Order: sequence, then structure tokens, then C-alpha cells
Amino acid sequence: MKMVEIIDGGVTTPQGFKAAGVHSGVKYRSLDLGLLYSEVPASAFVGYTSNNVKAAPVQVMMKENSEKLSAVVVNSGNANALTGRRGIEDALEMKRAVASALNLDPLEVGVMSTGLIGRFLDMHKIRYGISRAAGALDSGREADGLIAQAIMTTDTIKKECAARVRLQDGTLVYIGAISKGSGMIEPHMKVLHGTTLSLITTDATLSPKFRETWQSILDDSMNMVSVDGDQSTNDTCILMANGKANGKCADDDPEFIDALRTVMTRIARTIAKDGEGATKLIEVQVTGADTKDEARKVVKTIINSPLVKAAIFGSDPNYGRIMMAVGNSGCKFSLDDVRLTIKGGDMEVPILDSGAPIFQEERAVEVVRMAMDNKEVTIMVDLGVGKESATGWGCDLTYDYVRINAEYAS
Amino acid sequence: MKMVEIIDGGVTTPQGFKAAGVHSGVKYRSLDLGLLYSEVPASAFVGYTSNNVKAAPVQVMMKENSEKLSAVVVNSGNANALTGRRGIEDALEMKRAVASALNLDPLEVGVMSTGLIGRFLDMHKIRYGISRAAGALDSGREADGLIAQAIMTTDTIKKECAARVRLQDGTLVYIGAISKGSGMIEPHMKVLHGTTLSLITTDATLSPKFRETWQSILDDSMNMVSVDGDQSTNDTCILMANGKANGKCADDDPEFIDALRTVMTRIARTIAKDGEGATKLIEVQVTGADTKDEARKVVKTIINSPLVKAAIFGSDPNYGRIMMAVGNSGCKFSLDDVRLTIKGGDMEVPILDSGAPIFQEERAVEVVRMAMDNKEVTIMVDLGVGKESATGWGCDLTYDYVRINAEYAS
Repeated sequence: MKMVEIIDGGVTTPQGFKAAGVHSGVKYRSLDLGLLYSEVPASAFVGYTSNNVKAAPVQVMMKENSEKLSAVVVNSGNANALTGRRGIEDALEMKRAVASALNLDPLEVGVMSTGLIGRFLDMHKIRYGISRAAGALDSGREADGLIAQAIMTTDTIKKECAARVRLQDGTLVYIGAISKGSGMIEPHMKVLHGTTLSLITTDATLSPKFRETWQSILDDSMNMVSVDGDQSTNDTCILMANGKANGKCADDDPEFIDALRTVMTRIARTIAKDGEGATKLIEVQVTGADTKDEARKVVKTIINSPLVKAAIFGSDPNYGRIMMAVGNSGCKFSLDDVRLTIKGGDMEVPILDSGAPIFQEERAVEVVRMAMDNKEVTIMVDLGVGKESATGWGCDLTYDYVRINAEYAS
Repeated sequence: MKMVEIIDGGVTTPQGFKAAGVHSGVKYRSLDLGLLYSEVPASAFVGYTSNNVKAAPVQVMMKENSEKLSAVVVNSGNANALTGRRGIEDALEMKRAVASALNLDPLEVGVMSTGLIGRFLDMHKIRYGISRAAGALDSGREADGLIAQAIMTTDTIKKECAARVRLQDGTLVYIGAISKGSGMIEPHMKVLHGTTLSLITTDATLSPKFRETWQSILDDSMNMVSVDGDQSTNDTCILMANGKANGKCADDDPEFIDALRTVMTRIARTIAKDGEGATKLIEVQVTGADTKDEARKVVKTIINSPLVKAAIFGSDPNYGRIMMAVGNSGCKFSLDDVRLTIKGGDMEVPILDSGAPIFQEERAVEVVRMAMDNKEVTIMVDLGVGKESATGWGCDLTYDYVRINAEYAS
């Protein structure tokens, strides 16, 4: 049997976690405040946005740098970003309200916000929401669903994932994850110092040493997603490991790492797929790069190109734009050696031969259009220089992206 | 009187220049081949794209690096990019055809292409076009207009500009310019080694030493335009100075430099204004930066943000996105000191006070919407760190941008 098994589940699937999602009134109607709770203090691993304009909750959490968290509160509808000192006070107050409701130290409480930038929180509503959520904490699929919904903004689908994996010591552990994120998405989250918010829970045991592995997993998953190239002020990804499965420390357990990577990659793909207005998921695989950094840079330049994204929206076989993006990445390659392949559905179409396209006739170009006319389009670029590779995910640029973002604040 | 005077004119306004624009058949109906000719060999200053995937004409011109040019041929409809060795042969053949028609050395002939990437040129049509254009060379406003039209792709307006300036030695010189460019626009043109194509003519005298000044003017004008952040494979900007006004060398003449800068800035603004699908011109002025590079980086991060661009399209007062972009630029500043002002029409609205927005009430935010509801919107950011500044131009992100680019090749 494969060690990692994806199962139907969410953040309360691992033992000892409870969650709630309620309506506080920050948003007009929908759920807008989520609370996650671990029965025992969990080792916390956090990744924060590297945007220099950091939201108040990010600033607060980075400063406190808690190694253990027992609860995380998340509100949607208002990012508490660009809110000055009052914003910092409000984020601290959110932590205190949770701590008092659950009998915790405020340092054990994580806080995240997402939504409109540049407005003060209505703390009256937030306090009311926290007290409701604290009373509603529960485990099971219903609770999973409520918290996943409460953190959504322009997301059109709930982003949940869970996995079960048997560690090398025989312990069966669970990983659960929820995430939100649809626009303002190109996280570069750093562990030591995305607006995608993610909460990952596990009943495995992890030590502070796991931090490095956590950064590398973030770099290959969440940090390789881009909807619009705009890194948020609020991106935060929290992994809570409460050890309730009573296994050995899983820091170096390849099965655990593989399972976590699988969950994080799934979440990353879901965010890209649900990018604002997206009709297609674009996966970019770059191989043959000189360095890992160069491979990543080529992936990012392709998935961030509005021209590539619009062409894929229209299934317009304008592959020249992909090469334009490769050239703009600033990476090392010789055009004669580059191989470009476009894959969609059952079709895998090689495009280049010695620096020039194979297809010149209109009819031949039609096969490229057919490959692009799929819900998932994969662009494969082999730079032919070295051995490093990277994979990233984005989405097409559509009329709906423009519509959503031309009327967001209104 | 002001020394620099903008006048009605084009590339043949300076003495000794002739131009033609014809239909060769590369495009279905419209003019698609332009030819510019100087009666005497002109000192040539060229800026080329720094995209690593360079179109064949760019590769050819960079290799030959001619100090003097007597003619430049430009075709639209096909970029002759990503066309391998055959593309190089075709670019060379274009030069030879012009040289033979005008009795010139092929080294004296510049070549530029713009249009679809990844298709071979139909040289039969190109040769026919060149011979027609050579026969049609003329000076005057009609010829100016024909060549300006012949180099257009998705442009909706002809981009022409001319100026008259009196040098310090008393000589009256003329500068004429045409340009095309609407999409795939974020040129970083380098003189020594931008698809906007521009042809600038002058009857002033310039020496090779003018190269550095030319780079600095390019950096402050064309290289500060971004429609979509996608640098083309073909960007080229050629300045031809034929000395027909018989003035002294104008390399260091402040009046001449000012006039050239004025013309180039006007052309740059026109390109941004006519960005694919654009309804608004966005000017971004950054002041108080620590270094010029940082100032430029902040300008570029703002004008390239799809979220900022879409907000401006919808006159959506979501200024938080502007600060998100400032934060993503990676530049040095303290949020408490940053000043942000949005200007449109008669309105000039300050946004931030000590790191938080001045406006919190919906009604107050309306003034921001009113400022944004103009054909030209100016975003002013004072970083409050140092003394460097930069200005750049972009446009809003609209439904039409998506439409145009989802069906370009088709």
C-alpha cells in the first residue's frame, strides 16, 4: 500500500483539534470568523508574507514568535492591514479575547486576517464573533467545513485536504489542511521572519528542527502559486503539530514529509485553480535549469505573464509568448537547446525545434489549440542547461478577473 | 520664448528624411511595411530589448552595430522572432533588398519587425513591399502618417510627435518621432548590447559620445512604460541624426537634450495611454526614495500590479492595493513616513496619515473614487527616505485587454 493516503477530511481530522466558523457581522451575510483549537499546545511552524507592508496580525505574530500555539483566530472581510497602531491594538485584542474565552495565554493564540486593506476592524463585531466561535468549537466534517468557509473571501470553492500516513515507527498520523486565497496571490512566505491563509493540523510530533523542512515544503508548494503576481500584506501559513498520535518525532520521517508535501501541493494547486475569475489551471514545469532559483524564476515569469495567461484563456496557440516570458526571466539558456511542450487532456504537443516552432501552417497550429482547450494546461520547458527543476501553478486571465477586481472595494 | 516647441510633425519633419508606408500583404489589408530614409548617412543610436529571446532583426542589428544608418525598414504583422536561422537569413535579406533598391551598403540599413512571434516571414511579400516602399519615399505629413500607420499592430492611434528647438549656437533643429506599441510592453532597452518600435529623426549633429545621454533618456522615458510587464523580443528604438541643420555637435546642448527628452516622454505616455484595451493613463510618481533604482522599482511594481490596474479601471478606491505594491517592491521605507496621494482631474486626494488611511467612512472614500474616475490618474508616493525620484506610465487592466490577448494569433 502507498504510505500516503489522501482521505476525506479537514483541520479537525487529526486527533485533538476542534474548529468553528461563525458570522460576526464584518461581512454582510456569510461566515467571517473562524477559530481553530488544539486540546494540547501544538508546536507551531509559521510562514509569513515577505511584503514590506505587513498587516497588523502578521506584525504581531512575527514579534511574539510563539513556538507553541493552542488556538488560531481568523477573520475575513477585513485584512487589518494599513491600519497603523490601532490595527496592532486590534490584533492583540483578538488574541486576548480568544485567550480569555478558552482559558489560554494570549501568546498561545495565533491571529490572521484577510479582506479589504485599509479599514479599521469593527472590534465590537469581532469580539461577538470570537465568543460565539469559542462556544461552537467542535470536531468532525461539519466543523471543518464551517471554518474553511469562514476564512474565504473571493474564493469560490472551499479549500480542504487531509491525508493519513503511517510513520516509520508504525504510528498512524493524520494531516489536515484548510486554505483560502483567490486574488492578490504570489506568496513568498518565509518561516523565520501568503493573501493566502492556510491552517495545517497534524497529530504527529514535530520539534523546532522541523522549521527548515517546513520552509522547503512551503517553497515548493504555496510559494510556487501565483494568481496575479501580487504578494499580499497578509499571507500566513500555520502548521500546528500537537503530537496526539503519540508517535516518535516525525521531523525526519520521509513518509511524514512526503505526506505533508502532498497535502501542501494539493492545497497550492487548488488555490491556483480557484484564482479570481480562473477557468483553467496552468501548471508550469521547468527542467534542465542551471540552478533551482533559475528554474523557479522561469516558472514564475511564465505564470505571471498576462499575455500567456490571456492566450491560455482563449486557447489561443500563441506559444511565442511563452518563449518571450522565458527570455524575460533573465535565466541562462541557449535558444537552440530549449524544448517547449504544451500538454492538455490526452495531448502532448512539442513546439520547438532548434529555436524555431515546428508548426508553421495554420492547420498544424490547431493541435496546439486543442491541447490548450482543457481545464488543466501544462507548459513544460526544458532549458537544456543543467539538472535543476521547479514546478508552479497559476491560472488564466479572464474577463471575470477584471470584473472581480474592478469592483472589489465597492 | 520656451526653447522647446512641440509642433505638428513626424519623422520627415527634420531636414533630409523621407518615409513611406505600404501594404506588402503580410497583413490582410492594412499597411504593414514602412521605410525611413536619410539623404545622408545619419549617426545612429539604438536601444534593443534585453529579453534573452531576441528576434532575428534585433540579433542582426546588434551584431553589426552600425554607427551610421541611411535607412530603416520595418514590417508589422510578423515579429520574425523565434524563427531560428531562417529568421536571421530573412532579416539579412530585408536589409539587402533595401540596400539594393536605394543603392546603399546593407550595413547602413536598419531592420525591425513586430507582430506574431514564431512564424516565418513570407519573403515574397516582404520583397514586393520593399520595392514599393522604395519607390514611394517622400517627405511631408502624408509620408509621416503612412509610415506611422505601417508599423502599428494592436495600436489604436498613430504615435507621432515632433519638436523644434534652438540650440545654444543659434541653429534651429527639428526632432521627429514615430512609435508603435500597445501590448507586450515593458521595455528595458539597452543601448549597447525595446515590442515597442520607435524611430526618432533629427537634423541635429550628434557624435558617438551621445550614447550615454541617449541611454539616460531611454531609461527615463520608454523604459518607464509598462502596459503588461511583458518585455518583448523585438523592442527597438532608433535615433537617427543626419546633421542636415548644419549646427554644432549637440551632444551636450541642454536645449537639444531637453527637446529630445520631451519628445521621448510624450511618445512614452502615448504608448501607455494606448495600451491594449486601456481606458485610462496611469502616471506613477515616486519621490523620496533612497536610490534612483529603488524609485524606479516602486514605480514599476505599482504600474505592473494587475490589482491596482483593475481597481483604476473600475474607479474602485482600493488604495490598499497601491500600498501592497509598494511593499512588494522590496524597497526601503518606514510605513509611518510614506505619503500617498491620488490625483485625477482637479482632485488631489491625500490618502495616508501615519501608516493608516485618512478615510474610513464610505462617504469619504467617495472622493477617492471621484479622483480615479478620470482619463488620467496620477499616483504619487513619497517614500520619505531619500531624495531620488522616478516617474512611469501604465494603463488600466480592462475587459478589452483580455479580449485582445485571448484571440491575438487566431
